Amino acid sequence: VSARSGKKAGHIHPLILAGGSGTRFWPLSRRARPKQFLALGGPRPLIVDTAQRLRGLTTARAISIACGRAHAPQIRQLFPDLAPDRLLVEPVARNTAPAIGWAALRVLARDPNGVLVVLPSDHHVRNPSRFRALLARAVRLCADGTLYTLGIPPTGPETGYGYLKLGAKLSGGAREVRAFVEKPSAAKAARYVASGDYLWNSGIFVFRADAVLAEIRRSLPELARILARIAPAVGTSREARAVERFFPQAPNVSIDYGIMEKAARVATLPADIGWTDLGSFAALAELKRVGRGGNVTQGSCVTIDSRGCLAISHDRPLVLLGVDDLVVVDTGDVVLVVPKSRAQDVRLAVAELEKRKLDKLL
Amino acid sequence: VSARSGKKAGHIHPLILAGGSGTRFWPLSRRARPKQFLALGGPRPLIVDTAQRLRGLTTARAISIACGRAHAPQIRQLFPDLAPDRLLVEPVARNTAPAIGWAALRVLARDPNGVLVVLPSDHHVRNPSRFRALLARAVRLCADGTLYTLGIPPTGPETGYGYLKLGAKLSGGAREVRAFVEKPSAAKAARYVASGDYLWNSGIFVFRADAVLAEIRRSLPELARILARIAPAVGTSREARAVERFFPQAPNVSIDYGIMEKAARVATLPADIGWTDLGSFAALAELKRVGRGGNVTQGSCVTIDSRGCLAISHDRPLVLLGVDDLVVVDTGDVVLVVPKSRAQDVRLAVAELEKRKLDKLL
Repeated sequence: VSARSGKKAGHIHPLILAGGSGTRFWPLSRRARPKQFLALGGPRPLIVDTAQRLRGLTTARAISIACGRAHAPQIRQLFPDLAPDRLLVEPVARNTAPAIGWAALRVLARDPNGVLVVLPSDHHVRNPSRFRALLARAVRLCADGTLYTLGIPPTGPETGYGYLKLGAKLSGGAREVRAFVEKPSAAKAARYVASGDYLWNSGIFVFRADAVLAEIRRSLPELARILARIAPAVGTSREARAVERFFPQAPNVSIDYGIMEKAARVATLPADIGWTDLGSFAALAELKRVGRGGNVTQGSCVTIDSRGCLAISHDRPLVLLGVDDLVVVDTGDVVLVVPKSRAQDVRLAVAELEKRKLDKLL
Repeated sequence: VSARSGKKAGHIHPLILAGGSGTRFWPLSRRARPKQFLALGGPRPLIVDTAQRLRGLTTARAISIACGRAHAPQIRQLFPDLAPDRLLVEPVARNTAPAIGWAALRVLARDPNGVLVVLPSDHHVRNPSRFRALLARAVRLCADGTLYTLGIPPTGPETGYGYLKLGAKLSGGAREVRAFVEKPSAAKAARYVASGDYLWNSGIFVFRADAVLAEIRRSLPELARILARIAPAVGTSREARAVERFFPQAPNVSIDYGIMEKAARVATLPADIGWTDLGSFAALAELKRVGRGGNVTQGSCVTIDSRGCLAISHDRPLVLLGVDDLVVVDTGDVVLVVPKSRAQDVRLAVAELEKRKLDKLL
C-alpha cells in the first residue's frame, strides 16, 4: 500500500495507560483509587480486565503499564509478575503523549520494528475475541508506518466521545481518518451518526514505535526535545533519574490532539466490539444486568415502585421507594444521590467537598 | 348552657396516649421505638414535649400515660417520676376507646368530677401557651357533660386528617360538632376548607370521666361490659390482673368513631395553635428550619443543585446532587430514598422488608 509497506512486522508491545484520575465515578473512585482500579464491568478491576483481554494476542510479560507515582504500589500488587522495566512511573501527570513517547523509546531500544498497542485502562469490551483479531490486523497493517486507531461504530448520538471523520477506504477493511472531532454538541452528534461517516474515537492506538516518535518530532518538537534527553538513559540504571529530571518539563498534551490529528497517515479499523469507556454511572447501569423493574443493584438493595435506578449498597441496605432513574451509591464513608441524567456532573460534588476541605472523601 | 352545667368543675387528669405504632417515619421509627419516642419536632422525644407542654396547666404528677407493653420500659425511663398508678400498660393494642375507658374508670375512682384531657403523644404544637389556655377553657366548658375536642383551622386541603363539620355557635367560642368526617378525597377537602364550616380533628379531647363513660355505655355497650368487669379492681392490687384478663376482649375501636361521632353533645374549640400531627417526612420537613436551597438537613449533608429535600445523615455524609423534593434518611442500619410526594407510602417499604424477613430493620 505504501513505500514503507515492505518493513518487517514487529512484535507487539502493549502499553496500558493507567495515569487517569477522573472523578466521574466518585464516590466509588477516589484520588487514591481511580476508576481503573474499580471492578465496574465485572468481578475484576478494569485494569486487570484490560490486561487479561490481550491473552492470546500477546504474553503477559510483554505488557507495559504507565501510571502516576501514587498508584504504582497498587499496580505492582495487581500485577505481581510485572517486570520493573515494564512499569513506567510518571513523576507528574502530563497526559498521554509524553508517556507514549517514553514507552516508544523503550520499545525501540529493544525491538527496532516494535509495535505499540496503546490501551486505556478503564474501558469495557463485550467482545474480546473480535477485539484481539482487530488489534492483530492493525499490527500487521501498521507496518507501513500508518498510525492506527480503533473506531467504534456509534450506537447513538453520544456527546461524551470524540469522533473520527472517515476518509478513503484502505486495504484490510481500514479507513483513512480525515479528522479528529472533539466532543460534539447533541445536534452535531446526531448529524454525525446519521451520516455514517463518523466513528467514535476509542483511544485505542496501534503504531510502530519509530512511526509515533517520528510524528512526535514533527508535531510536538518540544516533547521530542525532552525525549531526546531521556533516550540515552533508557534501559540503563540512569533511566529513572533522567525521567525524574526531564519528564516534568514535557508539555501536557494528549496523543489524540497532540499527534494523531496532525499526523500525515492515520487510519482506523471499524471495531464493532461492544466497547464503552464507562464514562459515568449511567453508562455503568447500561452495562449491568438489569433486575426487577429495570433497576441495577449491587449488594443489599430493596426497590419498590422504582424504575431505571442504579443502587450500590455497602454495609446497610438501600431502600428505594417511588424513585425513577436515580443513582444511589453508598461507599461506607459517604452516600451519593444523583439522577442518572446528572451522572456526568458528579465532579461538582467532588469540587464542593474539596471546597469544604472534606479531603478524606476525595 | 345545659341542665348539667351546675356541676362543679373537676380537676384535670391528662392522659397521654402512647400506644401508637405507626410506620410513617420508618426507618427513624421502629417497632421498638415508634414515632412518639423520636425527637422529631425539637431536641426532645415528642412524648416528652407532649408532657412538658402541659406545664402551668397541671402538675407533672397528674399526668397518666397509656402504652403497649413493649414500650413501658422506655416510658418509665423517660418519666422517672411517673407513679405506677399513672401508667396504663395495655396488654394488647385495642385502639384508643378501651384505653380511654380504663383511664376514665381510674379518674372516677379518685375524683368524681374529674376531667380527662386526652392527648396523642406524637403531635407538635407551635404555640403551647395558647394551647394550654384553650385546654383550660375546654375543662371549664365540659363541666356540663359535653365532650370537647380541639378543632384546628385548616391551613390547606389536607387529605390526611379527619374533619369536624361545625354546627351552632356555643358560649366560650365553642362550636357544636355536627359530624366527624373521615379523611376526605382531595376534592372534598378543598370544598371543606373553602366552606369555612370545617376544622381538622386534632384527636385532642376534653371531657368529664363520668360523661365519657356514659357515652361508652350508650355507644359501645360491648366495651362498657368489659369496663364493668375491670371497674371493681381499679385502684386495688387486683387491677393489673383484671386488665390482663378482660382488656384483650375489648373491641378494637377508636374514640373518634366509636364514641365522639355518636355522642349527643359534642363541641369543639377552634384552636389556632400551630398544630401538626407530623404525619410524614414531608410534614416534618415543613416544620424544620429550611436551609440553603430550601433543603432541610440534619447531620452531615451536602446539597448541590438540589431543592426542597429532607436529608438526615448518620455516620457518613449524604451528598445530594441535582435532586428535588427528595427524602433521604440514613439510620446507620438502612438508607431510605423516597420522594416527598410519596412520603406517606413509607409503609410500603416496611411491608416489603417484612416480606423479606428483614425483621431487624422493622
